[in-house]
Amino acid sequence: MLGRLNHVAIAVPDIEVASAVYRDTLGAVVSDPLPQPDHGVTTVFIELPNTKIELLEPLGEDSPIAGFLAKNPTGGMHHVCYEVTDIMEARDKLVAAGARVLGTGEPKIGAHGKRVLFLHPKDFCGTLTELEEA
Amino acid sequence: MLGRLNHVAIAVPDIEVASAVYRDTLGAVVSDPLPQPDHGVTTVFIELPNTKIELLEPLGEDSPIAGFLAKNPTGGMHHVCYEVTDIMEARDKLVAAGARVLGTGEPKIGAHGKRVLFLHPKDFCGTLTELEEA
Repeated sequence: MLGRLNHVAIAVPDIEVASAVYRDTLGAVVSDPLPQPDHGVTTVFIELPNTKIELLEPLGEDSPIAGFLAKNPTGGMHHVCYEVTDIMEARDKLVAAGARVLGTGEPKIGAHGKRVLFLHPKDFCGTLTELEEA
Repeated sequence: MLGRLNHVAIAVPDIEVASAVYRDTLGAVVSDPLPQPDHGVTTVFIELPNTKIELLEPLGEDSPIAGFLAKNPTGGMHHVCYEVTDIMEARDKLVAAGARVLGTGEPKIGAHGKRVLFLHPKDFCGTLTELEEA
């Protein structure tokens, strides 16, 4: 079922500072910040040869990463995202195996304009796990 | 400086249970567990089309991941590992930029038999960051 690792998301308190770390200190290719009000985050993508790092900064009052940053004020790894070819088939298999899908259980349109689901960290090695239909 | 994302490491309390999650629930290709007494961990690799997930279970009395699992008993994302072509050049540039290298500051031979360094999480977005000479 699992395809490529689409990205690793790192939540950060200040996306300009974090971008400078990846661009200037680590010498990576870093995108401009993109506010995504519908998702409650501003995103920056670090382009690596084989995958991406997604930096996330809270945006607005009800950002879904606000709680994470309250617990991890200097930032930290927030989730991993794997690609699947058919997200409904993946969802149905996972639910049949006893895994919990967060929210309504229906895919939403994610920050890349594709259908995504988030899986409960307790069912996946303590790791918030996103599936994206590639 | 940054090359491929070599792996994302996930620390887990029980590597057999975690392997079953990735193999049976997520349908990934999962290696057999490999005890690595020199590193204080048992490892399992999840082979994805573009990179790897490394599952880590503590091994022995002084495992370097024991503290992490005490804080995160169900497991969690432990570190990311980026490839570099010249680890000494990378180390010298990072130190000149004010970044902290963990331990002695000299590369060690990592779990894959290659030279590695770990960078201080506080200098890299709250994320423990490993560099591996590819």
